[in-house]
Amino acid sequence: MPDDMARPLIRERAGGSRHLEASMLEPSTLVIGILGTGDFSRSLARRLVASGYQVVVGSRTPARSVALFPEEAEVTYAATLTLTFTLAPALAGKTLVDVSNGLQIKQEGPSNAQQLADLFPESYVVKGFNTISAWTLQAGPRDGSRQVFLCSDDQNAKSLVMQLCRRMGFIPVDMGLLSSSLEIENLPLYLFPSWRTPIICALALFVFFYLYNSVRDVLHPYMTSNKNNLYKLPIEIVNVTFPCVALVMLALVYLPGLIAAFLQLWWGTKYNRFPNWLDHWLIQRKQFGLCSFLCAVLHAIYSLCLPMRKSARFQLINKAFEQVQLGRPDSWVEEEVWRMELYLSVGIMALGLLSLLAVTSLPSVANTVNWREFTFVQSTLGYCALSMATLHTLIFGWNRAFLSAQYHFYMPPTFLLVLILPLAVLLGRLALFLPCVGHRLRQIRRGWEKSRHIRFILPDDDCRNGLENVSNV
Amino acid sequence: MPDDMARPLIRERAGGSRHLEASMLEPSTLVIGILGTGDFSRSLARRLVASGYQVVVGSRTPARSVALFPEEAEVTYAATLTLTFTLAPALAGKTLVDVSNGLQIKQEGPSNAQQLADLFPESYVVKGFNTISAWTLQAGPRDGSRQVFLCSDDQNAKSLVMQLCRRMGFIPVDMGLLSSSLEIENLPLYLFPSWRTPIICALALFVFFYLYNSVRDVLHPYMTSNKNNLYKLPIEIVNVTFPCVALVMLALVYLPGLIAAFLQLWWGTKYNRFPNWLDHWLIQRKQFGLCSFLCAVLHAIYSLCLPMRKSARFQLINKAFEQVQLGRPDSWVEEEVWRMELYLSVGIMALGLLSLLAVTSLPSVANTVNWREFTFVQSTLGYCALSMATLHTLIFGWNRAFLSAQYHFYMPPTFLLVLILPLAVLLGRLALFLPCVGHRLRQIRRGWEKSRHIRFILPDDDCRNGLENVSNV
Amino acid sequence: MPDDMARPLIRERAGGSRHLEASMLEPSTLVIGILGTGDFSRSLARRLVASGYQVVVGSRTPARSVALFPEEAEVTYAATLTLTFTLAPALAGKTLVDVSNGLQIKQEGPSNAQQLADLFPESYVVKGFNTISAWTLQAGPRDGSRQVFLCSDDQNAKSLVMQLCRRMGFIPVDMGLLSSSLEIENLPLYLFPSWRTPIICALALFVFFYLYNSVRDVLHPYMTSNKNNLYKLPIEIVNVTFPCVALVMLALVYLPGLIAAFLQLWWGTKYNRFPNWLDHWLIQRKQFGLCSFLCAVLHAIYSLCLPMRKSARFQLINKAFEQVQLGRPDSWVEEEVWRMELYLSVGIMALGLLSLLAVTSLPSVANTVNWREFTFVQSTLGYCALSMATLHTLIFGWNRAFLSAQYHFYMPPTFLLVLILPLAVLLGRLALFLPCVGHRLRQIRRGWEKSRHIRFILPDDDCRNGLENVSNV
Repeated sequence: MPDDMARPLIRERAGGSRHLEASMLEPSTLVIGILGTGDFSRSLARRLVASGYQVVVGSRTPARSVALFPEEAEVTYAATLTLTFTLAPALAGKTLVDVSNGLQIKQEGPSNAQQLADLFPESYVVKGFNTISAWTLQAGPRDGSRQVFLCSDDQNAKSLVMQLCRRMGFIPVDMGLLSSSLEIENLPLYLFPSWRTPIICALALFVFFYLYNSVRDVLHPYMTSNKNNLYKLPIEIVNVTFPCVALVMLALVYLPGLIAAFLQLWWGTKYNRFPNWLDHWLIQRKQFGLCSFLCAVLHAIYSLCLPMRKSARFQLINKAFEQVQLGRPDSWVEEEVWRMELYLSVGIMALGLLSLLAVTSLPSVANTVNWREFTFVQSTLGYCALSMATLHTLIFGWNRAFLSAQYHFYMPPTFLLVLILPLAVLLGRLALFLPCVGHRLRQIRRGWEKSRHIRFILPDDDCRNGLENVSNV
Repeated sequence: MPDDMARPLIRERAGGSRHLEASMLEPSTLVIGILGTGDFSRSLARRLVASGYQVVVGSRTPARSVALFPEEAEVTYAATLTLTFTLAPALAGKTLVDVSNGLQIKQEGPSNAQQLADLFPESYVVKGFNTISAWTLQAGPRDGSRQVFLCSDDQNAKSLVMQLCRRMGFIPVDMGLLSSSLEIENLPLYLFPSWRTPIICALALFVFFYLYNSVRDVLHPYMTSNKNNLYKLPIEIVNVTFPCVALVMLALVYLPGLIAAFLQLWWGTKYNRFPNWLDHWLIQRKQFGLCSFLCAVLHAIYSLCLPMRKSARFQLINKAFEQVQLGRPDSWVEEEVWRMELYLSVGIMALGLLSLLAVTSLPSVANTVNWREFTFVQSTLGYCALSMATLHTLIFGWNRAFLSAQYHFYMPPTFLLVLILPLAVLLGRLALFLPCVGHRLRQIRRGWEKSRHIRFILPDDDCRNGLENVSNV
Repeated sequence: MPDDMARPLIRERAGGSRHLEASMLEPSTLVIGILGTGDFSRSLARRLVASGYQVVVGSRTPARSVALFPEEAEVTYAATLTLTFTLAPALAGKTLVDVSNGLQIKQEGPSNAQQLADLFPESYVVKGFNTISAWTLQAGPRDGSRQVFLCSDDQNAKSLVMQLCRRMGFIPVDMGLLSSSLEIENLPLYLFPSWRTPIICALALFVFFYLYNSVRDVLHPYMTSNKNNLYKLPIEIVNVTFPCVALVMLALVYLPGLIAAFLQLWWGTKYNRFPNWLDHWLIQRKQFGLCSFLCAVLHAIYSLCLPMRKSARFQLINKAFEQVQLGRPDSWVEEEVWRMELYLSVGIMALGLLSLLAVTSLPSVANTVNWREFTFVQSTLGYCALSMATLHTLIFGWNRAFLSAQYHFYMPPTFLLVLILPLAVLLGRLALFLPCVGHRLRQIRRGWEKSRHIRFILPDDDCRNGLENVSNV
């Protein structure tokens, strides 16, 4: 029944003036048509009706669908839910809102919205609402801001849909022209894209250090003195692996900023573009930091449950038995006591500072603080946390780097491996405090150039230049 | 002095054209009157004046109130703060904004705004601002979005108030017609309505398991061997009760989704409505989950402080004494050591996964992730957490289900009771992975129906159909 | 080249009608000029171009800068980036947006925007965008709401910039007239201003209690019995200091509300202004509470790691040795066991309640709950937490207040000092529950006054009256 399919998706006021004075629009004169009767369609209809709009729904089975929709919505028959080019004349001059989602992330090629625009050149295609779930549409944006990403080639159609959006209680975000529609269609398909590298890095570090520690603490004792330390695998080996991952990841948060600063000092200008890998690393620092924090917290929990275990209790009782046999009333070793008191205390302080960093990474808290406060926490307190964590590891190591007995299979104690990167980062940061170095860097960031004849490379749009003041964060 | 009372609440521009071009509105031509001089009135006046509006305040004691208001606001005399029908002619054609709150939650009957509209049929009543506190009005919506819920029968008046709202820095949310005013008036009176069932459920489970454990661990030893285990009541019994509540509540998060899926398989269609209790249960899954997380964290803290207690130390010293008496140098029991190392490690992993779920439940984080990411965390990682927690309980139980000594008063060990629901949920979920079952369910959710002659029940407006893809979350 | 400098910053539509119908504005007819080519300028240009505006950038080195900007932006030559009065005729009638930031917090004196307005009296100066970082401009307000604070003397110019703001995806917040520009310019320069007093207070309390505890637990044993307790300094002394700070800070959260209530009872009216220090204290209660929570969490972590330490293990082994020497099979002391079980359990419950308070302080969670719910958590649950923490300290103290051996150097046990303020607060709160007192306070808050002839002081704009119902929070 072509006539039903000819019913326009958005009907304009009688007289059909294209210059809609959006703010003057009385919703009751705007009719919105929805093709399809799924969840999304139903939630959209409810919301539009509640905002005062007239809604017409096209369904292949109107008799059965009508009961699912609010009374005020009118459900009519639609022969097919597929839009074909034969509808082009009927939809000429109308605004088509494409709410579809793709099934896969597309890197290139026309998006759904662009294909729709090609089919209906006389209509105004607006891409939007595909990032909102039906549940959010229905419940309304009660918790937090609900942003709806829109783009369109036609400004009037986009204004109209933005108006609609606001009346429904959402915040429209203008993403530009229809060429942005591919990006919008990919948005709901991403699965934590910025977390991949940090997580893979953390996993790789975990596997490496777990094997390293197992060789040192389980394999070596077994092969040299036939001791069975397999029971250490679930908790003790894990507990010396997590802090390794945490400390290295934390150093990896501050390393790119230092590399960027030294690159600028080397080039003598701020106008050169950073390499792509450095740019991506700089963007993912927050994810590296949060992975580090998670590992640090797990290390804390594993450590705290060491005394609870049966193995610890049996060892304590055996030690007491030994003391009694030796007839020694006092087993106190002052150096061991101080080493543990100190590194525990420093470790807890490091964890406290890291948790402040983690809390200010929460989106709502990050929005409350201004740039100066955010930099103070992430940069100043961050370097304090890194220093504390490094000191914790150094005190934990104590003098074991100098005891040859600690070199199992000629492998250095794990804490030595772990300390390489953090100490390098801290030394690099201290180097930036040297007057001449710091002064030169500030000059460069204010625009000074070693040579005005240095030719810089044309930027492409994807590659950010890396904000020049990034090593402050 | 009837003339003062005749002063309109919102005065329009001279000439009084009803078609206000809202965006063109220069605030200085709009006069807003406020009846009353309390905190809210004062904060509202300050904010309106700061946004550039002219404000006239009606007070019974203008001489004393004038000092409390900003200079730009004009305070005049109002004989009474009660609006009576005699004012109807004076207020005809004006917009009345009702900011009142009720004293009790009303289920039905006319709301304050509707009563106001009945009294003043010639005026345009808009309900709004009653959910904002005076402090927020004054400080401004600095932290996070501040939504103001509005509703009105007249679109122009509503546009006007929405404009006012935006200029004051708030985000207006259009709730529809004045019939929504009852819902808006009830909004500030709720006290965590969606938390009642989960909290009552958690408390009931806590009381049940506490009594069960007390009977097993305190009463039974007392009655059989006259041991005094009363000291266990504050910490040890609590520590074996919290994990029971946590695990059962976690299973209750995933159970309704499974029930919904099996109902759809049973009916062979997705168009039937779920029972009311299932709908409410599906909506409250987040609250069940957060209660479970809180109990899990408390269990962790109680467990971690077990070795700290004097009772644990006395027991350890007594054990050492025993060892010395027996002359046994090594008290090591390999099986006990492995059991504890394993279930502790698995338990900490379960807690880590649960904390990821809890963090993504925070409103700001939930807004940052898209639907695919949210489902991945809440569904995939959630089932992993449930599996880990179940494994933790199974390893903790070890072989005690088969030792008759563990059946105090013929009551099974607590961990057996606790495992019933989680194992049922996990088995149910595995059943959905079976090819035939999973395929049929996907067909049903795409619209397939066992029989096209199944007559479905007309929905009423309150009952959601339950989003068909809910068992993914 | 004066002609280039004469290019207007915001060019209007041909015909230049000042009545811009903002909602009708097609971005393509608005030309925005940007002076300067730094990071901010570049990010601003990108965003404006993406939102559909025409952008002209003035640069001293257009040839080199053009590569840094998007294609659609036009980069022209600007002789100088300094705006001088010679430009006044060219900029007459245009809108100038001042995005500058100051270098220091200015308490008074003309702001940058006001100086600009003085230089260009014919132009319309709008202050805005100075609180947004270049990174946010470029990435867009994806996480959370991005508020842009604007102010201007001219309503049309302000509307225009607000429109621009919305199209770019931000939420404009109208701060009023240009006199607010000083406040806006100071906004990004603050470094946690509301946290200074609470942090200084916490540090002072920490230092005081640390010294007090050190004298009692390290100095006194050394001087009386030559015992070396120095090893206690890193962890044990810190662990008895943090709870002191936490409990006193928690009492300081609820004390100002009580002082305010009692002041109102004393005065017999609610119309008197509170002293300045009380107003500031009331505003900073959240910061006091969060400092208290942090100290409580650190105390918990330090306590939990007590059994892990070598010192604790050596002491345990020594004790076991002693037991064996004495030939005592059972070292159980029922009173000590019960004391520890009870105060640990109560302490964990107090920490649990405090964490609920901390979670509802997060901006996103605070926005989700309404006023009644927020007051329930912060006030009701808050007083429960304070009571629990006080009980925890009382049980910890047990009978040590009555043992003269505990009075080292005649100094009372620390827990006695700590309990003074919390007990005072709890007693004060109980006093408010007395029928006569509570009734009188409710009357006063509804407007009753002891004497209608009490003359109240004129308020100044900075001093809030303190919301009269504050002691509910």
